[in-house]
Amino acid sequence: MPLITFKPSGIKIEVPPGTELLEAARKAGISIDSPCGGKGTCGKCMVQILAGNVDSDSLGVLPQNVVAEGYVLACKTKVLGDAVVVEVPEQLGREGGKFTKTSEDFSLVSKELFPEKWEYEPLAIKWLVKILPPQIEDGMSDFDRLAKAIRGQWGECQITCKLPVLRMIADTIREKDGLITITIIYDSARCYVINVQAGDTTAKNYGIAVDVGTTTVAVELVYLFLGEVVAVRSEYNEQVECGLDVISRINYAKKPERLEELRRRVLATINRLIKQIVDTHDIDINDVSSGVISGNTTMMHLLLGLKPEYIRLDPYTPTIKETPFMSAAEVGININRQAWLYFSPHVGSYVGGDITAGVLCTDLATDSKEMSLFIDIGTNGEIVIGNSEFMLTCACSAGPAFEGGGIECGMRAALGAIEKAEVDLETGVATCENIGNVKAKGICGSGMIALLASLYLTGWIDESGKFNRSKKSKAVIVEGRFAKYVIVPASESASGKDITISEMDIENIIRAKAAIYSACNLMLEQVGMTFEDLSTVYIAGGFGRSLDLEKAMVIGLIPDLPREKFKYIGNASLMGTYMVLLSKEYREKQLELARKMTYLELNTAPAYMDQYTGALFLPHTDINLFPTVKKMKDKFSQTGKIYK
Amino acid sequence: MPLITFKPSGIKIEVPPGTELLEAARKAGISIDSPCGGKGTCGKCMVQILAGNVDSDSLGVLPQNVVAEGYVLACKTKVLGDAVVVEVPEQLGREGGKFTKTSEDFSLVSKELFPEKWEYEPLAIKWLVKILPPQIEDGMSDFDRLAKAIRGQWGECQITCKLPVLRMIADTIREKDGLITITIIYDSARCYVINVQAGDTTAKNYGIAVDVGTTTVAVELVYLFLGEVVAVRSEYNEQVECGLDVISRINYAKKPERLEELRRRVLATINRLIKQIVDTHDIDINDVSSGVISGNTTMMHLLLGLKPEYIRLDPYTPTIKETPFMSAAEVGININRQAWLYFSPHVGSYVGGDITAGVLCTDLATDSKEMSLFIDIGTNGEIVIGNSEFMLTCACSAGPAFEGGGIECGMRAALGAIEKAEVDLETGVATCENIGNVKAKGICGSGMIALLASLYLTGWIDESGKFNRSKKSKAVIVEGRFAKYVIVPASESASGKDITISEMDIENIIRAKAAIYSACNLMLEQVGMTFEDLSTVYIAGGFGRSLDLEKAMVIGLIPDLPREKFKYIGNASLMGTYMVLLSKEYREKQLELARKMTYLELNTAPAYMDQYTGALFLPHTDINLFPTVKKMKDKFSQTGKIYK
Repeated sequence: MPLITFKPSGIKIEVPPGTELLEAARKAGISIDSPCGGKGTCGKCMVQILAGNVDSDSLGVLPQNVVAEGYVLACKTKVLGDAVVVEVPEQLGREGGKFTKTSEDFSLVSKELFPEKWEYEPLAIKWLVKILPPQIEDGMSDFDRLAKAIRGQWGECQITCKLPVLRMIADTIREKDGLITITIIYDSARCYVINVQAGDTTAKNYGIAVDVGTTTVAVELVYLFLGEVVAVRSEYNEQVECGLDVISRINYAKKPERLEELRRRVLATINRLIKQIVDTHDIDINDVSSGVISGNTTMMHLLLGLKPEYIRLDPYTPTIKETPFMSAAEVGININRQAWLYFSPHVGSYVGGDITAGVLCTDLATDSKEMSLFIDIGTNGEIVIGNSEFMLTCACSAGPAFEGGGIECGMRAALGAIEKAEVDLETGVATCENIGNVKAKGICGSGMIALLASLYLTGWIDESGKFNRSKKSKAVIVEGRFAKYVIVPASESASGKDITISEMDIENIIRAKAAIYSACNLMLEQVGMTFEDLSTVYIAGGFGRSLDLEKAMVIGLIPDLPREKFKYIGNASLMGTYMVLLSKEYREKQLELARKMTYLELNTAPAYMDQYTGALFLPHTDINLFPTVKKMKDKFSQTGKIYK
Repeated sequence: MPLITFKPSGIKIEVPPGTELLEAARKAGISIDSPCGGKGTCGKCMVQILAGNVDSDSLGVLPQNVVAEGYVLACKTKVLGDAVVVEVPEQLGREGGKFTKTSEDFSLVSKELFPEKWEYEPLAIKWLVKILPPQIEDGMSDFDRLAKAIRGQWGECQITCKLPVLRMIADTIREKDGLITITIIYDSARCYVINVQAGDTTAKNYGIAVDVGTTTVAVELVYLFLGEVVAVRSEYNEQVECGLDVISRINYAKKPERLEELRRRVLATINRLIKQIVDTHDIDINDVSSGVISGNTTMMHLLLGLKPEYIRLDPYTPTIKETPFMSAAEVGININRQAWLYFSPHVGSYVGGDITAGVLCTDLATDSKEMSLFIDIGTNGEIVIGNSEFMLTCACSAGPAFEGGGIECGMRAALGAIEKAEVDLETGVATCENIGNVKAKGICGSGMIALLASLYLTGWIDESGKFNRSKKSKAVIVEGRFAKYVIVPASESASGKDITISEMDIENIIRAKAAIYSACNLMLEQVGMTFEDLSTVYIAGGFGRSLDLEKAMVIGLIPDLPREKFKYIGNASLMGTYMVLLSKEYREKQLELARKMTYLELNTAPAYMDQYTGALFLPHTDINLFPTVKKMKDKFSQTGKIYK
C-alpha cells in the first residue's frame, strides 16, 4: 500500500491505492481546509507533491504554472505510487483568529425579549413522590407501584420506561423508604420516565438549549428548577474544516463515511461545550434530562446523520421537517442517556429550526397585525416577513464573514475581538474597542461593520470597497494590485502581529451583506411592499453584545429606515430555543409558526441574482435607496466632517 | 498481581489479589459448574490447589480430609499468592449427555392446539404503498409524505421512527419511484415504523417466538406472511453453568458483573439459535421485525439485566410484571435492530410469561365453566387451576431432572435421547426407543419416567427408588452402598460408554415429581376440591413428541385419574408465544388472563413441606391416592405379570 509522508509534520500513513489525498490527510489527523466541501472549486486544499506518483485533476482550478510546480488540490488527487511525500502549506493553520478554538462567551441571551405572560412547563419535569412499600397481598411489581404513583399525579396514561431506568427502579425505591424523585417527559397522554432517584432531587433539574449554526455552535445550560441560565458557551462548529457553507457541507457529505464524519464533528463540538459547562459548574450530567436543539435544516440533517443531498437538488426536499423526539443516547449528545431531545421544526430546505426558534422572540409570534421583518444574519441568512395573518420566509447564502470565517483576521464575538472601530478622517488610523478590554486578537462581525462604515464615510474606501489609492496613510499598505489595511498594529495586538483587513476580505463582507439585503428586498417585492411598510425590523445574529445598526445601514446590510424601527435581538435562535425548553406553550406556538410560514425558494427566483448584483456596493448601486447614507456622504463632501 | 495456572489445560491468567477463584476461572474461559449459584452449598465447584497461597472458606461443606488434600470450593476461595496452580477436576466437563450443546429439535409445536376462530393480526405488519413524488409546491419533507401514506391507511396516529430508519427514508422512497414496503407496529393509536424497503417485500415478514426456560431455550421462527413456522430450535440455556434453578441464578446474580454475565449468556443462547435458523433458511435478519418472548419471571429479569434479588426476598417482588415493548437493539436480540419485542406478562414472582402463554393453549382461556388443571413441568414447575371465573396459580422448584439436568446421563429430548424404556421382568434389562432411531446418547425426561415406572412395576426398584438388592441382573451394578442401572450398554451407545442411571439420579427424579404433585395437591386443597373435580388436566413441558401419561401416573408425577382427562400439550409456552406473535386478540387475552390469575406463594404456605415429604415415594406414601397404581402392583404380586 502507498505510504504518504506529510511535511512539515512528518506524519506518515499507509492507505489503499486510489485513496483521495484529502481523505488520507484526515485519517492521519492533518487539518486541511476544504471550504467548498471537496468539490474542487475553492482551491483552498492546495498541497505540493514533493515525491511519488499521484493522479490529479487540478488543472482548470489551479493555473498551469502552479500545477507545473507540483501543486495539486488534495480533494482532486488520488494516491497511486508507493512513497508519496506531500507538503502541506502553513497558511492552512488554525492561527490568526481564523476559526480559532475558543469558547468564552459574552453574548448571553437577554431576558428582556422574554414575554411577560407565559406558562412554565419545562420539557422535563421532576417531582417527589412516596412509593408504597411492596406487599405480598397486592402482588404489584415495583414498576406497577411506580406507575400507580405516576397515574395518581398525571391521570391515565401510557408509561414508557427504557431498560436502563427499569434497571434502577428496584434499588431506588428501597433506598429511602420509597421516597423518590421521578423525572418525566409528558407528551400526548404518554409519560416517558427519564430517571428515578432516591430522595428529593427535584432541585437538580437541568436542560440544554443548543443552537447549531453552520459556523458557530452555542450551548446554554438552563437550571429548569428556576428557569435560569447557568451558562452559555459557543465555539466554531468543527465541521467548518469540511466546508464553509451549507452547500459545501452537503457536497462533502456525498460519501457515507463523510456524512458520518460531519455528524461526529458537530457532536464533538456540542459535547465539548456541554462538558465545559457541567465541569465548571459541577453538575452531574445525569441531572440534565432534556434538551432542545435548533439549527438550519442541513445542520440538523448532518447532526442526525440524515443524507442532506436531496436538500440541494430540485425540488429541494429535506428528509424531515418536524423531527420526532429522540433520546440523547440515540443522537449521541452526552447528557443523561435517556434524556429527551426536542428539535425545533423546520419550514423548508433552507429555513430551519433556528428561524422558527428565533421568530418566537418577535412580534411575529404575537397576534399583532403590524408588519414585521426578521433578519437572522448568519452563514445562512434567513428572512421572515409577515404578521399574525401570514408569513413569508426565505434563505440566502451569506457566507461566514460576519462570524469571522473567510476573513484573514476575522473571529467570533469572543474575548479580544474588535467590536467597534472608528477611522480618523485625517490619518486614516482606526481607534478600536475590544471585547473584554484586552489586547485585540482579531475582528468580529460588529467590528467589521463599524470599520467598513467608517472607512467608507471618511472616504478611505470607495463604494466598491477598494482603498482610495490617492490618499496616504500608514494604515493602508498597497502591494501591487492589492491593498490591505492595518486595523491594529503589531505592537498593540495580542499576537504581536498586525491585525489587518484586505480588499479581498472587504469583498467577502460586501458579498455577505448583499446577499442579505437583496433577499429582504425580493421578499418585500413578493408581497408587494416596500421597507416603509414595516413597523419593526428585527436583526438577529451572533454579533455579541451590540451591533451598531446605523453602521449596518451605512454599508447597506439593512435598509435605510428610522432607527427606532430596528431591534437588535442577538442570538434569537438560542433565546427561542431556551423558551421552548422552558414552556410547552412556546413549543406549540413554534410548531404553529413553522406550519404557517410560506417558504420561498430563492434558487427558483430568477430576480434574486439581479437584486444581489445591485447590492454589491456600499451601500448599494442605487444610492437613492439609502437617502440617509446619501445625506451623510453629501454632508461629508460639503463640510469635510463626518455626519453624527 | 497473582498469576493463576489452571490444570490440566495449562491456561494462565493474571488477576488482582483477592479475586475469587470461580471468577478467575470464568475470566480465563474455563468452565466450572456452580449449580448453587456460587453460594458455597452444593460443593460442585470443588478444585484442588496444587501450589500457591489462597484464602479459602470451604470447611463445613467439604470434609476435613478432603480440605487437607488441598481441595477447596472455587466460589469460596480468594487468590492471594503470586503463583497459584489449580487442578480443575475432569468430571466437570461438558461430556456425557450432561447439558451437551445440541440444537436439533423434534418437538415442533402442534397446530392442533390452535383454536379455530381467531383474528390474524401479527405484531409487525408489512404493506406496500406508493409515496407521492416530492413537489416544491407542497413543501412536504420525505417523512411528511411517508406519514401521509401511513395515516391514509391507519387514520390519525402518532408516528414514531427511530434514527436508523429515518436515515433510510430519503433513498428508499426514490429507488423505485416511491413504491415502498413499510413495516410497522401499530399500538394504541401510535405507529412505529420498523423498516422501509424499496419495492414490494411484503412477502418477507418474519417474527420470532422465544421460550426462555431455566434449563432450555427454544426459538421458533415464524413466517408471518402465512402464519407458518419455518423452524424451531432449542438448546440448553447457557446460564446452566451458573446455577441449576432460579434461586441459584438469583444468588449468582448478586454481584452486578455476574448479573451482566447471566444476561450475556442467555442472549448468546437465543442469538445462536436465531442464527442457526436464519442461516439454514437463508433469511435476512432485517426481515425479522418482531418477536414475542416468554419465560419465568426470573429468566426475564436476567434477560433484561434487571436485579432479580427482590424476587427471592419476602415479599417476593419482581421489578416488572407487564414489561413494556422494547426494541431488539435495546435488549440485544440479533434480529432487525428496530424490531419490537413483546414480553408475555407475568403473574407473580415465580409464575411468569411462560405460563400466561401456555394457558392460552387450554380451556382456561375459553369461557368454559369446567374446572381445568394446567401443569407445566420444567425446572420450575408451575400449576394453574380454575375456569373462566377464577384462576389460582403457584410455582414449585422441581429442578432440571426432567430436562436432563443433574442426571448423570440425562439429556434434552433431542436426537439420540432415550424416550421410551421397558424393563424385562426376568432379566431386568431394558428395551429402549431413541429419538431419531439412532444410537442412544442419553436419556430424556419421558424416557426417565417410562424407565422408573417400569423398574417400579417390575419390582426392580422399591417405592423409595432403591434397587432390590436381592434380585440379580447384569443391568444392576452395586458398588458399596450405592447401586446403578445400565440402561444401554457401552456396545450399543453412541459414545461407547454405558448409559446409566444411579440411585442418586432416581432420587433427583423423585424429588422433581414430588414437588409438582404436592403443589397440585395443595392448590386443590386451597380451593376445597379434589382431583376428581377436574374435567381436564393439561400437561405441558419439553418432553418431546410424547409423554406416556400412564407411566407418569405410576411414578406419582400426575394424579391417578381416568386417562381421558389428561392432555399432553408439549411446549405450551412456545405454542402460546407463537399465538401471541400472530394475533393481537391473543395478546389481549393473555394480558386479561395474567391479571385474572391469583398467585399463591408456596414459600408462605407451611402445608407445602408436608405435602412434599409425603410425595417422596413411588407413587406416594399414601398409595390409596393412586388406586390404579395400587391395582397394578397388586395384580403383579398375584400374577407375576405386568398390568397393561
